Amino acid sequence: MPSKKLSIIVFSGDFDRAVAAFTLATGAAAVNWEVNLFFTFWGLDIIKKKRGHSFIGKGLLARFFNFLLGGRKNLPLSRLNFGGISPQLMTGMMRSRNVATLDELIAAAQQLHIKFIACEMAMHILGLTRDDLIDDVKEVIGVPTFLQYSEDAQVLFI
Amino acid sequence: MPSKKLSIIVFSGDFDRAVAAFTLATGAAAVNWEVNLFFTFWGLDIIKKKRGHSFIGKGLLARFFNFLLGGRKNLPLSRLNFGGISPQLMTGMMRSRNVATLDELIAAAQQLHIKFIACEMAMHILGLTRDDLIDDVKEVIGVPTFLQYSEDAQVLFI
Amino acid sequence: MPSKKLSIIVFSGDFDRAVAAFTLATGAAAVNWEVNLFFTFWGLDIIKKKRGHSFIGKGLLARFFNFLLGGRKNLPLSRLNFGGISPQLMTGMMRSRNVATLDELIAAAQQLHIKFIACEMAMHILGLTRDDLIDDVKEVIGVPTFLQYSEDAQVLFI
Repeated sequence: MPSKKLSIIVFSGDFDRAVAAFTLATGAAAVNWEVNLFFTFWGLDIIKKKRGHSFIGKGLLARFFNFLLGGRKNLPLSRLNFGGISPQLMTGMMRSRNVATLDELIAAAQQLHIKFIACEMAMHILGLTRDDLIDDVKEVIGVPTFLQYSEDAQVLFI
Repeated sequence: MPSKKLSIIVFSGDFDRAVAAFTLATGAAAVNWEVNLFFTFWGLDIIKKKRGHSFIGKGLLARFFNFLLGGRKNLPLSRLNFGGISPQLMTGMMRSRNVATLDELIAAAQQLHIKFIACEMAMHILGLTRDDLIDDVKEVIGVPTFLQYSEDAQVLFI
Repeated sequence: MPSKKLSIIVFSGDFDRAVAAFTLATGAAAVNWEVNLFFTFWGLDIIKKKRGHSFIGKGLLARFFNFLLGGRKNLPLSRLNFGGISPQLMTGMMRSRNVATLDELIAAAQQLHIKFIACEMAMHILGLTRDDLIDDVKEVIGVPTFLQYSEDAQVLFI
């Protein structure tokens, strides 16, 4: 019997969409689904080692973009962001309701053996190397390999 | 023979994305697909009883967020929103072309027995209870139950 | 043996999401998947014949919206757009890394026989006719036909 699988393309680097992606991922893993998270474009911002604004990456423009993106601590809300204060308010609301925060969801994903994968091409464009990403990222792959991993899986683009 | 199924995670509360979700849902239901709509985060704004700005929800911050979101009458366009005037212009364009408006699409979804489901965790974060949502919402569930409902379904994240 | 299939609903007209859609599409086609691209709403902006700002479409409002959207040359970045300069910076970064640009990805999609399909209803709302779209668009269809084409396919909403 093939196990059930969920593959999520984490394209967005928005706080709220990241929470949705990790909530779905950990929820699926909790009932024994195999889960792959494929981080690309803005989504790479969630899995950078440097969690704040930092000039990383090769090339002047890439360094500038990466600085502006600002890492996991600075993910914006896709609406009602109010200059970046809202993600902190939202985290406060989550904490007061005893709902797992984004940091807790990411830690849970690691404990549940969810596979973190980074998109080769997006890393190339943004001038990032594997050393720029957290150690949980097990592989850097391209689209064909991702599709192969996602055979018989539910695939979502977030 | 298993019937065909479509599950849509309605994460966005944008007017245009809501129209897309309900167009896909009613189009699928019209050719006898089983359709589940799972409303989460901003998407909950589409199915609130109070269709305008209102301070609902438990907790000061939650009440403030819900007020700002503003309900179904105030869904913004994701682009070219022009301070909120565009959804009305778009509705006018839809009406003049004899295309179903969002309100008509939602009514059609109800008649076609599309299942409206609300995300437990998102309701919890936003301090909403079932009484805050329209009566068509039949269930409030978490991710594992949603995944179970979506077995053998096409799943979209909008 | 059924061939593997990928259907992408290209709803967004953002530069970065268009790049993601075409990267996934061409990556899948390169390993012999059958790929359908279903352009709807803002996504129609990517496949208009007129690549710049132009008053096309039937009806005053439709002409105004189409003008503002501005065609393939003016797709905005969904974040850090800086008044429209960023897509050009991003294209520069892609070129300097020898990564295919959006125009190159679209040309590759055509060569790989990826099927371009336009959404009937969205064209109707925006007052567009088939003549307004590039010749590669082979069909204009509705949701039920799209779902039929996507049977046994991985379906993504971008």
